[in-house]
Amino acid sequence: MVIILLGLCTLGFPRTAFCPSIMTNSTVSINTPPPYLTLACNEKLPTVMSIAGSDSSGGAGVEADIKTITAHRCYAMTCVTTLTAQTPVKVYGAQNIPKKMVSQILDANLQDMKCNVIKTGMLTVDAIEVLHEKLLQLGENRPKLVIDPVLCAASDSSPTGKDVVSLIIEKISPFADILTPNISDCFMLLGENREVSKLQDVLEIAKDLSRITNCSNILVKGGHIPCDDGKEKHITDVLYLGAEQKFITFKGQFVNTTRTHGAGCTLASAIASNLARGYSLSQSVYGGIEYVQNAIAIGCDVTKKAVKVGPINHVYAVEIPLEKMLTDECFTASDAVPKKPIEGSLDKIPGGSFFNYLINHPKVKPHWDAYVNHEFVKRVADGTLERKKFQFFIEQDYLYLIDYVRVCCVTGSKSPTLEDLEKDLVIADCARNELNEHERRLREEFGVKDPDYLQKIKRGPALRAYCRYLIDISRRGNWQEIVVALNPCLMGYVYAVDKVKDKITAAEGSIYSEWCDTCASSFCYQAVLEGERLMNHILETYPPDQLDSLVTIFARGCELETNFWTAAMEYE
Amino acid sequence: MVIILLGLCTLGFPRTAFCPSIMTNSTVSINTPPPYLTLACNEKLPTVMSIAGSDSSGGAGVEADIKTITAHRCYAMTCVTTLTAQTPVKVYGAQNIPKKMVSQILDANLQDMKCNVIKTGMLTVDAIEVLHEKLLQLGENRPKLVIDPVLCAASDSSPTGKDVVSLIIEKISPFADILTPNISDCFMLLGENREVSKLQDVLEIAKDLSRITNCSNILVKGGHIPCDDGKEKHITDVLYLGAEQKFITFKGQFVNTTRTHGAGCTLASAIASNLARGYSLSQSVYGGIEYVQNAIAIGCDVTKKAVKVGPINHVYAVEIPLEKMLTDECFTASDAVPKKPIEGSLDKIPGGSFFNYLINHPKVKPHWDAYVNHEFVKRVADGTLERKKFQFFIEQDYLYLIDYVRVCCVTGSKSPTLEDLEKDLVIADCARNELNEHERRLREEFGVKDPDYLQKIKRGPALRAYCRYLIDISRRGNWQEIVVALNPCLMGYVYAVDKVKDKITAAEGSIYSEWCDTCASSFCYQAVLEGERLMNHILETYPPDQLDSLVTIFARGCELETNFWTAAMEYE
Repeated sequence: MVIILLGLCTLGFPRTAFCPSIMTNSTVSINTPPPYLTLACNEKLPTVMSIAGSDSSGGAGVEADIKTITAHRCYAMTCVTTLTAQTPVKVYGAQNIPKKMVSQILDANLQDMKCNVIKTGMLTVDAIEVLHEKLLQLGENRPKLVIDPVLCAASDSSPTGKDVVSLIIEKISPFADILTPNISDCFMLLGENREVSKLQDVLEIAKDLSRITNCSNILVKGGHIPCDDGKEKHITDVLYLGAEQKFITFKGQFVNTTRTHGAGCTLASAIASNLARGYSLSQSVYGGIEYVQNAIAIGCDVTKKAVKVGPINHVYAVEIPLEKMLTDECFTASDAVPKKPIEGSLDKIPGGSFFNYLINHPKVKPHWDAYVNHEFVKRVADGTLERKKFQFFIEQDYLYLIDYVRVCCVTGSKSPTLEDLEKDLVIADCARNELNEHERRLREEFGVKDPDYLQKIKRGPALRAYCRYLIDISRRGNWQEIVVALNPCLMGYVYAVDKVKDKITAAEGSIYSEWCDTCASSFCYQAVLEGERLMNHILETYPPDQLDSLVTIFARGCELETNFWTAAMEYE
Repeated sequence: MVIILLGLCTLGFPRTAFCPSIMTNSTVSINTPPPYLTLACNEKLPTVMSIAGSDSSGGAGVEADIKTITAHRCYAMTCVTTLTAQTPVKVYGAQNIPKKMVSQILDANLQDMKCNVIKTGMLTVDAIEVLHEKLLQLGENRPKLVIDPVLCAASDSSPTGKDVVSLIIEKISPFADILTPNISDCFMLLGENREVSKLQDVLEIAKDLSRITNCSNILVKGGHIPCDDGKEKHITDVLYLGAEQKFITFKGQFVNTTRTHGAGCTLASAIASNLARGYSLSQSVYGGIEYVQNAIAIGCDVTKKAVKVGPINHVYAVEIPLEKMLTDECFTASDAVPKKPIEGSLDKIPGGSFFNYLINHPKVKPHWDAYVNHEFVKRVADGTLERKKFQFFIEQDYLYLIDYVRVCCVTGSKSPTLEDLEKDLVIADCARNELNEHERRLREEFGVKDPDYLQKIKRGPALRAYCRYLIDISRRGNWQEIVVALNPCLMGYVYAVDKVKDKITAAEGSIYSEWCDTCASSFCYQAVLEGERLMNHILETYPPDQLDSLVTIFARGCELETNFWTAAMEYE
C-alpha cells in the first residue's frame, strides 16, 4: 500500500481554521517516538509461524502462540488449521480449514515473509500433507521446526485419529528439530501405554520416541505426571538430545492450580521463539520451561466467577513503557507516589510503628523469628562456628552487597523526593564501606592472597534466590516496595545480635567478636531507628488497601535472610 | 482440565535412578518464579475480544489485535469472521466463517470469559447480525465497543459491499463507544465523497458521521491524508466527542515509509486495550496514536528482501525480562560489559580521544558547534540576556537536574564495576549540589518567596523532550549508552563558556558573571578532564562495530542541549 490515498491531494491545513462557536477544539501534539528507540529502525525481529488450531478464548492454540511469540519480542505469523469455539471449560464447536486454504496461507507466508521457525500445534490430515510438501520443496532452506504433537489436548478428551498420529511420525517428525509430547502424546506416538513409575521409564520413552519418529530431540513434558518425593511435588521435564545421546532433566515446582489451559502450546512456542532468537536447543528449552512455569504460577483471572478452570498468564513479563505517557505526555522515572501523606495511616497501626506491625504480623512472625533467632548468630557469638563456614558467609555476603548497592541506586532513581533519594544513596554508601570491610576480612583474617579471588567466588543457591528477589523487585516494584524488601537486611542483623548480646563469648579481637561488635555498634542502632522512621514514612505514602503486598514482601525478605544464614551453617 | 492425568499414579522418582553408561544425564533446576511476581497471583488482566478477519502474515487483523492487546498487558480473545491468506503484498485468498460458528464463538466467550471491551475489525454480514443479537441480549451489561469499520482496508482495493456499510450503521454503531474510520471509510459511511482541503472539512465529516451512525464519538484517522504546512508533513487525527461537542486534534509527524500494514487495526485495538485498562476515551485515543506512531516509525524487517511493503512493529515496547535467565539462570542488574578492555579500540581513534572523535564526527559536529557557540551563552557573558529569560532557564534547568540525578542513579545501578558505580554517584552528588545552588539563585537573585514555587514550575517542550530522551536511554540502554547520553551536558557548558571567556563583561557579582565563573572554575575543568577519560573508558568496553549507536546518541544529546538554550532565548 502507499500512504497517500489516490484521488485525494495532499492537504495543507491553514493555521486559521475556525470552528462553530458552540464547539471547543483543542490540539494535542503527539510526541515524536522516543529518540533512542529509533536507533533500532526497521528492527530485524526473529519470526515464528504457528500452524495450529484457533482457540477463540485466547488461552491455547494460535492465540496462545501469538501471545507467547509477542512476549518474546518476536514476530508471529499464523496458519490456522482448525477453528474452534472453545473456552477453558470445553470445546463448543470446531471446523477444519480446507486443504486449499491451508496451502494458500503457507504459500503466502513462505513466499513474502521471512520465517525463522515453524511451530506446529493441532494439525489436521490436510495440514500435515500440505506442510510435508512445503518442507520437501524448501529442502535445506527450511525454517527450524518445533512440533508439539497435541494428540491429547488437556482440555479435550477425544483423542486424535490414528491417521494424524501416523502422518505426524512419517511426514513431518523427520524434519523437526524437536518434538514436545506430553506423556499421553508419547503413548499415542509409541502406540502403547506404558507404566511410568520412575525417571528411568521416562528416559526410555524419550529415547524410543526419538527412534520411532526419526526426530533427534525429544522433550517429554512432565506437567501431567508430577512426582512426589514425599516432601514436595515436582514437575520433571526430560529432554533427550539424540546427537549427543544426552538427557537433561528439568526439575521445577509443581503448582497446585486448575488454571493451566494452554500451557503445552505456550511451551512449544516459547521454545520456538528462543530458537528464533538464536539460542541453543537446551537453552531454548530451559527458557521455555521457565516462562511457562511463571505463567502458570502467576496465573490470571479472566474467566467468569463460576468457571473454575482458566488460562495461564502470557503477559506477566510484559512491561508497558507507554503506560505513563497516557497521563503525563512524557516518560518520568519516578513512580506515582502521593505527594501528601495518607492521613490516619499510622493511627490504624497499633503502637504507631509500621515496623513493629510488620514483624508481629502472622504472615511475617514465623519468618522474622526464625531469622533473628538463627543458630548462625549464636555460633558466631560464642565463636564455635567453623571458620570455613564463616568465610563462606563473608564471601556470599560480599557478592550480596554488590547487588544490594545496585538495588539502592535503583531505589534512589525511583524515590519520590530528593530527600528520600539522598537517604537511599547514604545507605548505598554504607553498603560500599561494608564491601571494603569484607575485602579486608578475607585478606587479613582468612589469608586470601590471590588478587582475583573475589572475582572467582561462586554464587550459592541461597544467594542467587535472594539477589534475584531483590533485583526483581527493584525492576518492577515502586519505591516503597523496594525499600520494604531491603528492610529485613537493614534491621535483622542488629536485632539478631542484640538477642545474644549477653552470650558473646568469642575471643576478643577475633573476627567473631568483631562482627558482633559491628552489629551492636551505636552506628547500627542509629540505622535501625532510621529504618523504623523510614517504614512509617512508607506506610504514609502507600495505598492502605494494598498493605498486604508490603507484608508479603517483608515476609519473603526475612525468609531469604534465614536461608542465607542456613546456607552458611550447612556449607561443607 | 486437571493437572494429574487419570490412570497414572503420582510418581516418586527414586534419587538413585541410573542411566545406561554410554549416556550422560544432567539435572537443571528450574528457578521458582521470581517471588515478587507471585504477589500478582491470579492477576486480573483487562480483557479485550477482537472480532475481525485473520491475517495469516500477522501484521493486521486478529493477529495484529492479539499482538497489540498483549503488548498492552491485556488478555486477548478472538472471534474470526474471515480467514485470509495474505501478506502485506496482497490478499491471496479468503474464506468467510459460517454464521453458526461465529455465533458459537461469541456465545462461548461471553458465557465463560470476562469481556471488558469488544473491538471489531473486518466484519461479514453474518458477523454483524450475530453481534447485533448478542449486544441486544446483553443490554446494559454489554462490554465497551470499539468499531474500526475497515470498509476500505489499506491493503485491499475491493471495497466492502453496501450491505455491510448499512448494517454497521444500523445494527452496531449505535452501541459503540467510538468509531475509528479512515477517510475512505468516512466516505463509504457518508455515502458520498467529499473534498477535504482544510481541517474544517474533517471536523464536519466527524460531526456528520456521529449523527449518521448514532455513535457519539468519532475518530477520523488522518494516516491516509498527511497535511503539509510547507515545512513538514503531519498526520492529523480528529476526535469528535459528541457529548461535549468537542474536537480534539492530534498532530503527529508523518513518517515516510511503505511499511504501515496493519496500522488501522492496531490503533483500534490499542484504544480498546487502553479503555479496558480504565483510561478515559481521549486518553485512550492519545495512547493509541502514540503506540501506532512509534510502531510505524520504528518499523520492523520481517519480509523477504524483494518485498517493499511490510507490517508495523507491534513489539517495540516489549521488554524481555526472561532473556538473561537463558544464559545466567538468575536475573542480574548489570549489563553484559566485556570485563577486559577491547584492545586497540583507542589506537583506531585519531588523537586517542574518543570525545574529540565524537565532537568532530560529521553526524555530531553541526550539533556540537550549534551548542557550544550558542547565542544564549554570549548574552549571559555580556549580561544582556533578559532577566526573565535567565530565570526561565534556571527553573527549567532545576527540573532537568532532578531527572539528571535520577538517571545518574540508574547509570550507577548498571555500571560494570564498583569503581564506575562510585564515579556515577559522585556525578549525581554534583548535580544535587547544583540543584541547591539553583534554589538559592531563585530565592536570592530572582526574589522567589513562595515555598511551593519549585513544585509549581511547568515543564516546557524542550525540557520534556530532553528528559524523555535521557530517561528512555536510562531504561533501555546499557551503561555505556547512558554515560554517552549524559556527556554533552557535562562537557558542553565548560566548552561554551570557554569560547566567550574573553568577552565576559557582565557586572561583577551579578548572577550572569557568577554563572560564567562557575562554568569556568577549576572544579569544572577537572570534571571535563574526567569526562574525557570516561569516554575513552567507554570506547574500550563497547563493541567496535556498534560505535555508530554512540555517535547518534551523542549527536542527539547536543541537539537537545541546543534546543534547551534556544527555548530560554525564545521565552516570552
